[in-house]
Amino acid sequence: MAPSDEGIQNIDRLIHEPSRLTIMMHLYVVESADFQFLQHQTAMTPGNLSSHLRKLEDAGYVEVTKEFVDRTPHTALKLTRKGRDAFKQYRRNVKQFIDKLPE
Amino acid sequence: MAPSDEGIQNIDRLIHEPSRLTIMMHLYVVESADFQFLQHQTAMTPGNLSSHLRKLEDAGYVEVTKEFVDRTPHTALKLTRKGRDAFKQYRRNVKQFIDKLPE
Repeated sequence: MAPSDEGIQNIDRLIHEPSRLTIMMHLYVVESADFQFLQHQTAMTPGNLSSHLRKLEDAGYVEVTKEFVDRTPHTALKLTRKGRDAFKQYRRNVKQFIDKLPE
Repeated sequence: MAPSDEGIQNIDRLIHEPSRLTIMMHLYVVESADFQFLQHQTAMTPGNLSSHLRKLEDAGYVEVTKEFVDRTPHTALKLTRKGRDAFKQYRRNVKQFIDKLPE
């Protein structure tokens, strides 16, 4: 098995799933995001977004903070250090695979 | 939704699955491959490889040819034109997503 294969077959499947990849990508470029903002950005339903966020939270990749701003409940989401590192590793693996392929 | 998102959320999920991505990658770089050779290259079990190949065949991405060489049965696998184009499109989408992310 070629090294580039191992990169793909051992890739982080939690991040690889397209909806979660989109979520991770959005959280990667910000310090923190509001649930509704993220929902708008990803064009996902609230239920679908919640479900994927729970999996990312369970893996320790995303930190979920519920808070009140002017008496209105807000859910703030951010990547943890672990999540940020995992995403960087995922990106390295994918880039390596892409770069190795001939045109 | 940003353009790079659409690329990911509408990505070809048939190819995106890591085992099938590995198979497609191997077939992309050759004219044709023998089943056993491909199994060795991908380090997959025969059953697992067959199952993924069937899905790729059903989508019209892979052409499966059973033949006898010196009275021994051989299964030859190759990407169809459609499969090759789909893989190129997949790669373009992933590359676009990777390139747009900040370090």
